[in-house]
Amino acid sequence: MSRPELAQRISEDLTQGNIEGIRETLSKIHPSEIASILQSFDPDDHPKILEALDNETASEVILELDPEQREDILEDLDAEKIADIADEMDSDDAADLLGELPEQTAKTVLDKMDPEEAKDVKPLLQYPDDTAGGIMQTELVKVSQNSTVRDTINWIRQIADEVEDFHLIFVTDEYNKLLGQISLSKLVLATPSTKVTSIMEPVEVTVTPYIDQEEVAKIFQKYDILSLPVIDGRGVLVGRITADDVLDVITEEASEDMLQMAGVGDSLHPIYTPTKTRIQLRAPWLLLTLIGELFIAFIIVYAFQPTLEKVAILAAFIPAIMAMGGNVGLQTTTIIVRSLGMGTIKVNQMFKLVISEMKVGLALGLICGIIAALIGALISYNQPEVARLALAVFIAMVSATLATSFIGVAAPLVLHRLDFDPAAASGPFLTMFNDIFGSVFYLFIAMLIL
Amino acid sequence: MSRPELAQRISEDLTQGNIEGIRETLSKIHPSEIASILQSFDPDDHPKILEALDNETASEVILELDPEQREDILEDLDAEKIADIADEMDSDDAADLLGELPEQTAKTVLDKMDPEEAKDVKPLLQYPDDTAGGIMQTELVKVSQNSTVRDTINWIRQIADEVEDFHLIFVTDEYNKLLGQISLSKLVLATPSTKVTSIMEPVEVTVTPYIDQEEVAKIFQKYDILSLPVIDGRGVLVGRITADDVLDVITEEASEDMLQMAGVGDSLHPIYTPTKTRIQLRAPWLLLTLIGELFIAFIIVYAFQPTLEKVAILAAFIPAIMAMGGNVGLQTTTIIVRSLGMGTIKVNQMFKLVISEMKVGLALGLICGIIAALIGALISYNQPEVARLALAVFIAMVSATLATSFIGVAAPLVLHRLDFDPAAASGPFLTMFNDIFGSVFYLFIAMLIL
Repeated sequence: MSRPELAQRISEDLTQGNIEGIRETLSKIHPSEIASILQSFDPDDHPKILEALDNETASEVILELDPEQREDILEDLDAEKIADIADEMDSDDAADLLGELPEQTAKTVLDKMDPEEAKDVKPLLQYPDDTAGGIMQTELVKVSQNSTVRDTINWIRQIADEVEDFHLIFVTDEYNKLLGQISLSKLVLATPSTKVTSIMEPVEVTVTPYIDQEEVAKIFQKYDILSLPVIDGRGVLVGRITADDVLDVITEEASEDMLQMAGVGDSLHPIYTPTKTRIQLRAPWLLLTLIGELFIAFIIVYAFQPTLEKVAILAAFIPAIMAMGGNVGLQTTTIIVRSLGMGTIKVNQMFKLVISEMKVGLALGLICGIIAALIGALISYNQPEVARLALAVFIAMVSATLATSFIGVAAPLVLHRLDFDPAAASGPFLTMFNDIFGSVFYLFIAMLIL
Repeated sequence: MSRPELAQRISEDLTQGNIEGIRETLSKIHPSEIASILQSFDPDDHPKILEALDNETASEVILELDPEQREDILEDLDAEKIADIADEMDSDDAADLLGELPEQTAKTVLDKMDPEEAKDVKPLLQYPDDTAGGIMQTELVKVSQNSTVRDTINWIRQIADEVEDFHLIFVTDEYNKLLGQISLSKLVLATPSTKVTSIMEPVEVTVTPYIDQEEVAKIFQKYDILSLPVIDGRGVLVGRITADDVLDVITEEASEDMLQMAGVGDSLHPIYTPTKTRIQLRAPWLLLTLIGELFIAFIIVYAFQPTLEKVAILAAFIPAIMAMGGNVGLQTTTIIVRSLGMGTIKVNQMFKLVISEMKVGLALGLICGIIAALIGALISYNQPEVARLALAVFIAMVSATLATSFIGVAAPLVLHRLDFDPAAASGPFLTMFNDIFGSVFYLFIAMLIL
């Protein structure tokens, strides 16, 4: 059945109050498909549809929803149902869910959860969302150093329900300190009486809970691992992060960089985010730019009116100079922000990076400047001051690209070193510099030459 | 030892020709660290340092290098050594390596490789780099439907060396068609005489080799899986993709979007990519923009010179109008490109998306337009035509933001539907439209009003 057909059938069952029918229809569909279908229904119907799902499926559907939709649906469910759904989730997902609820509701839900599950979730609530602690889960397989392979397999049998997906067994000492790890395939091949310590391997890399999730993602990429143990300051094993959690982190961080560079502020959905929120998220950057631009207008009015009155045609090249400076700067800053995000450049290479980018910026500026000057001269051949006009365009364009290359590479590096987000803060600096060079500086040069 | 100290010691050993010493120094360091250290050495020394490593470590170091660096190093190694190194790699990595070599060299290396390894690699060479076939590996654990758990464990024992990292066993029929999968943990818990068919689970999702890697990444995120089987048109199992390969894909695709939007063309390293290549990659977009901007200059010279001569001060607000239109458009197009990249919007929502974005664009344009008109009037209060000037600024700013909102959402959607890259192609459209509205349209309005 296609998605519209499914939605149609569910809709009919809803009007007839046939919950059993909805359950039947949805039982053969993947939770992520159900989440997509849910979006075509009226919010009022959401609790009824979720009611028709078993708690495990409902938990998976909830996780697949957009954050705004999830918030809406959770508002309509009672704490009891949310607790049942949270019980079915991995501890990291349950903790994220609780973090999205109003504080009082979260407390009630935690109280109503299965005590065993709640015990797994509680320690996770203390870590910020974007840290290793925020994305790790507490469910893992660990055995003490005195265990044999037989003990380990028996232990796995006991906890098989709770820890669904794993491929590493961690070995700890009597204080829960991490000693080593055993891959499942090694365990399969070992004889039952073997001591775990004799087949365990050293753990290549670990992280502590307060490490930034972006660092965690870099570690996964550097070491090509599927799972990473998290230990606290004393070396005690507190959780593990799996590669599928990191997939989300990488997507999130890359989006964040892109949106921040465009001054959008935060992730927003072009349809589901309310219009008011979208305006609020986008306006600050625009207003900041506007103030700068009006300041530029002020300077032009008061300093360059006589020049412009004498050679009005000067204005014709303002767009070209601004656009070229702006584009070269955008290219440079994008390359630097992305390279910082991927960890392929280091801040201590600053001098080398600045020189290297300015060299490219100068070359591009010279190419564009020469073309602009020549064609500019052709366009305005009938103006009295055509040669000087062309010279002013050339000088201004080269200066603008050089200046924006410099800001484009230096601003993100300096901001990164000062622990600001280079993506968020580079944009306004760049626009400001570019527009000053593209208009004020150009008119200044023109005034001197003409 | 810190990295500079390590580099220092290796450098000393190199001058003394003490290869054994280098081997000793590097034996305790992770390959990705060795790759970083390698970058501080003269290219001539690279083969000597690689010679000191065992083939397995050398293969991991090679994989951690930047593409340009890898190319340089491979040029200096003979085919025999490259073949030894490729033998140690997973089939997908070996295929990528061969793909980076000149065709003739690749053939020679393939001939010199271990025949078993070469057999794994050959089928992969037919798939483009950015498809499921291009990122899958052929090493996997599969057993026939008639096997028992005991057979399976014996089989794993035989191939343990070759297939290092796995957590799923695939079950196939006599034609190698995929029937189901068994998680390692389930295998550990089953009794040896159990038939694999009685404990296998259905495979949730599979892909065919020519599926785009971006689609593969979306499947991993949607289904939260660590490994994905690849089957050909007849259902025959041909490979598997693991989550760590997908981490690289997501990073790559996100970078591509960002760099394309900034008109950078392709991934480039701010230091290691040669200056000439960087200029070549960045110049086309700039020159395209420049042509548009010079055309705008031409229109201004021929159509608006009288207007500008009458009210020279009009020029003062060109930067503001261009900057606001440009920024609103950049915000919109970034949101749409990113949403398309993450799969959170669909092209069939086009009408809804356009209306939704234009609503926000209009609101932002009105806010900025009112502020600009008011402050614009204040700045130029001593000009004779101040009220009309303010009105022209207001109309032009609202029109510019509305126009760039429209292009910012419509261009990437249409391009995406036509199978062009929305990130690459939106930029020039946007710049062109914006700058026409920010200068030509503004001056046109001003000419009408004044």
